[in-house]
Amino acid sequence: MKFRRSERLIDMTNYLLEHPGRLVPLTFFAERYSSAKSSISEDLAIIKETFEVRGIGSLNTVPGAAGGVRYMVSIKPEEAVAFIDELCGVMTSPNRLLPGGYLYLTDLLGNPETVNKIGRIIAAAYAKKKVDVIMTMATKGIPLAYAVANYLNVPVVIVRRDNKVTEGSTVSINYVSGSSKRIQTMVLSKRSLAETSNVLIIDDFMKAGGTVNGMVSLLEEFKATVAGIAVLVESDHVEERLVDEYISLIKLSEVDEKDKTIHVTRGNYFTKEAF
Amino acid sequence: MKFRRSERLIDMTNYLLEHPGRLVPLTFFAERYSSAKSSISEDLAIIKETFEVRGIGSLNTVPGAAGGVRYMVSIKPEEAVAFIDELCGVMTSPNRLLPGGYLYLTDLLGNPETVNKIGRIIAAAYAKKKVDVIMTMATKGIPLAYAVANYLNVPVVIVRRDNKVTEGSTVSINYVSGSSKRIQTMVLSKRSLAETSNVLIIDDFMKAGGTVNGMVSLLEEFKATVAGIAVLVESDHVEERLVDEYISLIKLSEVDEKDKTIHVTRGNYFTKEAF
Repeated sequence: MKFRRSERLIDMTNYLLEHPGRLVPLTFFAERYSSAKSSISEDLAIIKETFEVRGIGSLNTVPGAAGGVRYMVSIKPEEAVAFIDELCGVMTSPNRLLPGGYLYLTDLLGNPETVNKIGRIIAAAYAKKKVDVIMTMATKGIPLAYAVANYLNVPVVIVRRDNKVTEGSTVSINYVSGSSKRIQTMVLSKRSLAETSNVLIIDDFMKAGGTVNGMVSLLEEFKATVAGIAVLVESDHVEERLVDEYISLIKLSEVDEKDKTIHVTRGNYFTKEAF
Repeated sequence: MKFRRSERLIDMTNYLLEHPGRLVPLTFFAERYSSAKSSISEDLAIIKETFEVRGIGSLNTVPGAAGGVRYMVSIKPEEAVAFIDELCGVMTSPNRLLPGGYLYLTDLLGNPETVNKIGRIIAAAYAKKKVDVIMTMATKGIPLAYAVANYLNVPVVIVRRDNKVTEGSTVSINYVSGSSKRIQTMVLSKRSLAETSNVLIIDDFMKAGGTVNGMVSLLEEFKATVAGIAVLVESDHVEERLVDEYISLIKLSEVDEKDKTIHVTRGNYFTKEAF
């Protein structure tokens, strides 16, 4: 069965979007559509241009026998800024205030479009870096971790506070929570993470950074490397931050329970060079 | 700026895939590409045909002023069968056996491609039904729940075993775990679920069905309706199942710790009429 160009473009777009970060040999597409490699190359040039113009991502062509094409996610800076500004606006609604100065954000993290957009923004910053695995802490970070992992096409490992029989043997560490100064435990299944992996740590919220710092210590037990740390929201009003190198999309600078005001701004993602 | 047809096809494909289940007015695309509605209709006819031929999904066109086009996910039966058979093969590896007859599946649920494919298979069965919300129990069901939610474009609510300050006020129920017969608690944030919602319950594993049954009871507290129940793995060797109407992708019928054998087969998804 032969495919027309228009059909090839549609199916290739779907295939590339479903396999970000993966090198797809041209012969794969040539066989899939019974087409000449030269036609496939022309198709890819059209897709590449459209992906770039529309901010969908970039297509990198690797020449040679072992070569192929790789789709890497990106986002237009103005699209990321507009989205985060909108999210900041939504977050400052006074009815999000919970007793103790906490913010209700469960609905935002329950919306797949929102979560995917956040995941896309974070993934875009790491698309060209070496990331083998995403790590997060159960449970709030899980949706974000998978959203990022989807765009980078790498597995997710989930750190827990408790041991589960279905995890097999585990490695556990004790760490000091940065804000409450309490000693806590975190546990990771031994076989879930290969040694010397490059690990991107993702979390929804960072205050002093105790949890993130704990994950960094846990990675040392696995002889793994921190490829990066990214959080959705960082809280600004802490004396001493335990973590230095990280990106945040949103900075929560003030919550006034009495006046019912919440002050949030763009995070350091938008001032870092990487962006 | 005018767009050529090839560019429109690529960008529309991306847009539709990113917004499953949503009715997109033709005028939206006409404005996006400064094109006549008649050209957009022709584009959509090409996309529709390719989506159907390649098993990507279906495009439904709603006529009239309030009309538009809606992408709904699907999967070819043979693709679903091949994937589940492969997954069954992977699951029966003896080194997955944990003490107590449990199976190590964390790596499978950590792989976004695997999770997305499972999500796609489940979503395909509910794409034409009325689903407002996906519900799951923390923590193992979360990745699957989001994968299904992505394809149906509906929010996720997460039931927990414990109260969290960041959830605001909650509704909690006690339920009896089907296999251990212990009384347990489950908690859902009050404002996370609107009354009278149609809720699809997703979980990774079901034994007697106590957890799923608990979620059904919790839904009654919210005056919500069960739109469906879908699990990745059901365990076959139980005396009495607490849940009747559900779909499962995989059936675990026997785990022999001594002989190190695991027996799994396709779940009832593949024998139900829906499929």
